[in-house]
Formats: sequence, C-alpha cells, structure tokens
Amino acid sequence: MIKTKAAVAWKAGAPLTIEDVMLQAPKAGEVLVEVKATGLCHTDLYTLSGADPEGLFPAILGHEGAGVVLEVGEGVTSLKPGDHVIPLYTPECRQCKSCLSQKTNLCTAIRATQGKGLMPDGTSRFSIDGQPIHHYMGTSTFANHIVVPEIALAKIREDAPFDKVCYIGCGVTTGLGAVLFTANVEAGANVVVFGLGGIGLNVIQGAKMVGADKIIGVDINPDREALGRQFGMTDFVNPNDVENVVDHIIQLTDGGADYSFECIGNTQVMRQALECTHRGWGQSIIIGVAEAGAEISTRPFQLVTGRVWKGSAFGGARGRTDVPKIVDWYMDGKINIDDLITHHLRLDQINEGFEMMKRGESIRSVVMY
Amino acid sequence: MIKTKAAVAWKAGAPLTIEDVMLQAPKAGEVLVEVKATGLCHTDLYTLSGADPEGLFPAILGHEGAGVVLEVGEGVTSLKPGDHVIPLYTPECRQCKSCLSQKTNLCTAIRATQGKGLMPDGTSRFSIDGQPIHHYMGTSTFANHIVVPEIALAKIREDAPFDKVCYIGCGVTTGLGAVLFTANVEAGANVVVFGLGGIGLNVIQGAKMVGADKIIGVDINPDREALGRQFGMTDFVNPNDVENVVDHIIQLTDGGADYSFECIGNTQVMRQALECTHRGWGQSIIIGVAEAGAEISTRPFQLVTGRVWKGSAFGGARGRTDVPKIVDWYMDGKINIDDLITHHLRLDQINEGFEMMKRGESIRSVVMY
Repeated sequence: MIKTKAAVAWKAGAPLTIEDVMLQAPKAGEVLVEVKATGLCHTDLYTLSGADPEGLFPAILGHEGAGVVLEVGEGVTSLKPGDHVIPLYTPECRQCKSCLSQKTNLCTAIRATQGKGLMPDGTSRFSIDGQPIHHYMGTSTFANHIVVPEIALAKIREDAPFDKVCYIGCGVTTGLGAVLFTANVEAGANVVVFGLGGIGLNVIQGAKMVGADKIIGVDINPDREALGRQFGMTDFVNPNDVENVVDHIIQLTDGGADYSFECIGNTQVMRQALECTHRGWGQSIIIGVAEAGAEISTRPFQLVTGRVWKGSAFGGARGRTDVPKIVDWYMDGKINIDDLITHHLRLDQINEGFEMMKRGESIRSVVMY
Repeated sequence: MIKTKAAVAWKAGAPLTIEDVMLQAPKAGEVLVEVKATGLCHTDLYTLSGADPEGLFPAILGHEGAGVVLEVGEGVTSLKPGDHVIPLYTPECRQCKSCLSQKTNLCTAIRATQGKGLMPDGTSRFSIDGQPIHHYMGTSTFANHIVVPEIALAKIREDAPFDKVCYIGCGVTTGLGAVLFTANVEAGANVVVFGLGGIGLNVIQGAKMVGADKIIGVDINPDREALGRQFGMTDFVNPNDVENVVDHIIQLTDGGADYSFECIGNTQVMRQALECTHRGWGQSIIIGVAEAGAEISTRPFQLVTGRVWKGSAFGGARGRTDVPKIVDWYMDGKINIDDLITHHLRLDQINEGFEMMKRGESIRSVVMY
C-alpha cells in the first residue's frame, strides 16, 4: 500500500475534491505508475456531470496521462521501473479475438471489469478509509499514482515531455488516428471536420499530414477559425452564416466531401456530416460521443448511393503499437501539440480547468503533478 | 421509325396494357436492340404501384433484359448489329468523375435525363399516336425493341441463353455484386442475409462462391428455407420463431456476423442487420429499396464501436466490365440461375407475373418475346 493524492469524484454533478488515497501494490500482470501529467477531456466532464449512464461513483476520473513506471507485478515482461509510459483506456493484449482479427483496435481482454470500474481480478486498488474507490476507463489519471495492467500501457521514449505527450493518451490519437487508421484518408482528398475543439483540430492536422486538398472546418464559434487555419484548415464554415450547411459544403467540394468527421457528439450534426459527403464514395466518421439514448437517422438512399457511415474509437489506434509512433511524430515536429495545450494547472485547480472547458476558453488544460 | 410491341404503364396502380408503340431510330451514340427476354423485378412493381415518388407515367417499365443489337447510331464503335447485349440501368461511360474515381459504379454521364424518363438528348424515342411515352431506368425492357445509349449496354457472349442471363441485368448482379464488389467478403467470414427473394438468394450464392463459413438466411416465409439451402445457406432463422433476431444471430455467430445484407427494403430490418454484426469490424450492406421517406436509425455507439453501415446499388458492379464476367460465370457453372427462374411468360401474361410476385409464389418470372 502507498498513499497518493487524487481528485475524487464522489457523486455526479459535484466538484472533485483532492484526497489522500490508498493504493494497493500491483498484482500479477499489473504495473505501478507515477502519473506526471494528465489532460482534462470532455469525456471526464460527461461522466462527472451524471449524463453518462455507465458512470460509477465514487471514482477517480482521468484518462489522458503520461508517467513513469515505479514497480511491476509478477510476470510483467515488457516494462521495468523507470520506463516512460502512456496509460491506455483501449488496451492491446495482442491475443484476444479482436486484436487477432487485425480489423479493429477494440481489444476485449479486460473490457468487462474495466466497464465496472475494477481491475481484471474484479477488485479496486484504490480506497479511502477502507472504502473502495472505482477506477475509471482503466486509467484514473487524476491520481498521482495508479495501478494498471501491463497491456494498458504504451512504452514511450524518455525525452518526450509528459505535459505534452499526455494528450496523445486520448485527444491527439483520437483525431489523428481517425484520419490515418479509420478513414485512411489519401492525398488529394477533400475533408470536412465538424467541431474544432481538442479532437477536431487534431483531425485537421491529420488531414494535412496525409496531403488532403481542401480541409474544411465547421464550427459555430468564430474564434476557432484562426486556430483551425494554423493547423491546416483551408476553409472555415460557420453554420450560422450559411443557409444550409450540407448544400454549402457540397458546393465547396464540387459534389461533396470525400471524408467527413463529426467531433461534437451531436446526432443532428452526424446526419449533416454524412449527407455532405460525395455520392458514390463519401465516408463519414463519427468520433463524438452522443448523449445517452440519442439516435442517428438518415434515408437509406444516402447509403445505397455509395456513402459509408462508420465510427472511430481512440482513432482506430492500437495503443501499444501506434501511440509510441505518434510520440515520435510529435518529437520529430510532424505534429503540433504545444499550441493546443492552452493551460497548465495544479491538481488543486482541476475544477477550474473544467469550468474553462465548459466556457469554451481552453482547448486542452493539463494538470502537472 | 419502327413499330414494336410493349407493355405500357399508363398510370400508377393500373395493369399494364399491351400496345403497338412507335420507336425512333437510334441517334448518335445510341443503339437499337431487339429485347429477347426480360425479368420482372420488385422495382418495376414499386414504380407501377405509384409508391415511387420519382415514377413517371405513361412509361414502358422493365430493366432486366437481354437481346441483340439491330442497328447502331453514328459514332458507336464498341457494338455492331448481331452483338448480344444486356441493357444497363447503371451505365459505364468510363469518362465521368464517378467512373474515373475507381471508387464507385454509379456513372453520372446520363443520370439527369435518365431520371426524367428521357434519352440523353432530352427526348423520348417511344410514342403512341404521337404522344411520347417515357423510358424507364434507361432500359424499358418491357418493349420488344428499345433504343439505349452505347454506354448502357454490356456486350456478352453469344451462346448465353437470353431467358437466363437477362436476370444478370439486375437481380443476379445486385446480390452477387454486393458480396463481391461492395462488401468484398473474404473466405471464412460469417454472413447473414435478410430476405430470401430474388436478391437474397444471389447474395447467398455469392457468399458461397467466395468461401464464407456460416451463411445465415433470415425470412418470415418458411418455404424459402429449402431454396436457401440449395444455394448455400447453412442456417435458417425465421424471426417469428425466435425471441430477438439480433441476439439470436449474435449467439449463432459467436459475437456477431462479419457481414450482413438487407434485401427487403424494410428500415426496421436494416437496423437489425446493422446491429447483429460484430463489434469492431461488422459491415452491414443495405440493398433493399425502402418506401419513400422512410429513415434508418441506430445509436451512434453502434458505429463508434466499429460497425460500418453502407449500401449497394447494382451490386457495385461496373456494368460493361463486370456483367460479361458474370455471364461467363453462369456459363461455366460457377453460379446457378436456372433454379431461380420459376416462371416463363408471354408478354400478354405480364400482369399475371406481377400478381405471382405479390403472392410470393415466384422468385423470378421471365417474359420471352
């Protein structure tokens, strides 16, 4: 047992409180990690708000971290103390039906327990005064120390700064990966991105990286235009300024976009994103998380005439394989993370970080331990 | 001008009547074809019923024919009198943006006029007592003689029997092609087919042809089980006999189908077809034509967790390129058409053919001229 600090979510809708938390040592196949930095993501806010029907309390939220291995449990072979790591809410066991299919990144090895806020043995490693506290997304990076399974850690190079590459634990990979791994966007393609937040801007830089022609950003917040252009956006559309955003994009792209990405979580926008793609081959990729129970709809004719509707989770990236590559791309200057990290906070300022997110003031706030 | 016989649809909901129709000679780029045989398809019935919002009257319906070239217009180079052909409601110009994309079969060269029931020059070649009669789907195979653009004719081998290969003009190619060209089903895949009619049975034989493992047929008509098994179906599910067809298929396939095909045109079934596919990689292909205005729906989570929703028109086949190959496959015994053609009719029996279709008694009825 060690004692650590964590921001604890006691119940839906309440602010996080900083607590001393007891953490059990890693069991077989598990690893103790000192978290050095963590980003704040909309998904944490979504769960904290109570809107997530699968949300559990009390819990230690956070899923966008980076840190250092302190200790490994029995049988752990791929990591040792001192290794730098990014925790993975989508693990990569390389042995389950999903991993072996070579068609998906959605490893199922520990899915059942992770969804219950527990470690693979069905228990929690966190407690306060003997009361178990739930893990969250298998990561809980709002704690300074965490225990995670070996298969849920990507080993990364040691010269990468924690306060930047933590963002690769979710937002960067989700956006970039949707372009590279889910959609396989090719050079010369026309791309539309709905929602220019922490995901959408990474979709834009992914599209630029692979040589897309037109990269159209769509957002109702005009302040996002400048940042979008900095990341490679070629055209900006404010839906409030045009009569019909679908028709407008079809005109801009001479018949429709080759690829579109929904990065908001709004089911009406998901429909627009599909319907603005090109007849015959347009692909629309849903990235945003919709509110519980919301449904997407369209006329089947949209699909019969050649459009494809798909989705992307963690950018289709296989965490242990692809995350270290993305860290390399950042270190080589192929992608820009620095300008997306708008605020650095201490753990005790974490609630203010969520307030800034709600007000649309931040792209990414990062807590430094 | 020549005089020919045709079954004319004067108005929605009325039986066809056999008429003497005047047909103008082919203009530049056009070809005069003597239709030797034509299948009756649900799409003809759909338009005849008045439910098709794009249906035009009076018109000569029919889009599943085979025949012989009698005369070619100026500038026609790829066909000559005596060639055997299958008319294509999806042409292949090999020059438009769609054809050149190499991503779709939905050639747009003559789409605008075809949708208006006219030839590319904006006029009709058919008339009765001077009154123009609309073309239908660019084919109008319920006429004994037709004029169609060169780009809408697939040249086929001369030893292929018209009364069988006419079915390749729609149903065979639509079902087989959805498996081969749209979904690219691989050997060992598990496949589910909703609706075992003239399309679904061809999906089944396509899945068998490419080496699928489980081929599950779903139909509320128990009489379809025997025919399904004859074409390669391994399991039959009657939705009326199970509590939940989606759960049942997920169990049968150890987690969900790799590919599903909706061959009915029912938007509720389209949802089931999507949701019974495997998390991570399942693909669902919509083939059936839904009633006007009907919409498909699902929770976006279905797509975000890796399922793909797409559609298929004319099986994704490029008519002039792929149809002659499918004729070869039939002649080589790789696919079975004979057992799907349940009735042969004369043109004056065509209304009885549609009545048998409505009663579910026929798979394919073929009119022989």
